Amino acid sequence: MTAAAPLTLHHETIQPGWVDYNNHLNDAYYVVVFSNATTTLMDHIGLGDAERRKTGHTIFTLEMHVNYLKEVRGGAEVRIATQILGHDRKRLHVFHVMFEAGSTEPAATNEQMLVNIDMNGPRSAPFLPDVLAKIEAIARMQAGLPRPVNAGRSISLAKKG
Amino acid sequence: MTAAAPLTLHHETIQPGWVDYNNHLNDAYYVVVFSNATTTLMDHIGLGDAERRKTGHTIFTLEMHVNYLKEVRGGAEVRIATQILGHDRKRLHVFHVMFEAGSTEPAATNEQMLVNIDMNGPRSAPFLPDVLAKIEAIARMQAGLPRPVNAGRSISLAKKG
Repeated sequence: MTAAAPLTLHHETIQPGWVDYNNHLNDAYYVVVFSNATTTLMDHIGLGDAERRKTGHTIFTLEMHVNYLKEVRGGAEVRIATQILGHDRKRLHVFHVMFEAGSTEPAATNEQMLVNIDMNGPRSAPFLPDVLAKIEAIARMQAGLPRPVNAGRSISLAKKG
Repeated sequence: MTAAAPLTLHHETIQPGWVDYNNHLNDAYYVVVFSNATTTLMDHIGLGDAERRKTGHTIFTLEMHVNYLKEVRGGAEVRIATQILGHDRKRLHVFHVMFEAGSTEPAATNEQMLVNIDMNGPRSAPFLPDVLAKIEAIARMQAGLPRPVNAGRSISLAKKG
């Protein structure tokens, strides 16, 4: 029995083309890293390239929310911790946290709502049984995890950034 | 007197490196376009590169929210309509909508909370008077605009995507 923990599947090196004049990771390229982390998660749950070609199923992003907490420099190594917050027959609710290597202070968080797509349409469609079983296994393993503070957040001037 | 309208300052061509296997704009690269639209807005309100070098003031992104509504293909021309939803002494609340050229149906929306930074710190700092005056002029011009449906949205499985 494994203790409840986020999955740490994705690691990445911050590329020179992703930083600004100040060698800080540009806001949009945090999202490139988070998007790559979702691709890694997809591979992990049986929705990788090979399965897409075989089954015609893939994932689209419906919505995302990003909180920028710390600057990250070009060349830095980052890891992404991934928690599944929920799912239904077609949708997967995911929360990624970016950390610099060796740090336990989040550099950014990213909440995503994803939907399963049957490309023979294309139209939204229930997850295939093997994929759903993998999602459910992760969800069970992570059931004891607290909900991240930034999950479900909305943007407002009334809240301090 | 101009009728209340979003600003359309930013146009962009979807680059070949921004699309997936299917020639659809990747989720993260919608955000690259929205981030570029904020850079264009910054130029417009006196926070461009030249002013940054002169004053030491710039903008950081605190938080953003993206809704993906339509696929956009590689090579497409897009425009961004920009509405200022609010501001205080240090923060600017912006809402971008992406349209393909010739279309009035949004392809994606992006809400951002930005903060003014004095890089001699760095620390958050009030907008310089010239910048604040430009923000206030846009806010006055846009005061009659309805609030976008996706503004203030939070992510939840309880809502249909």
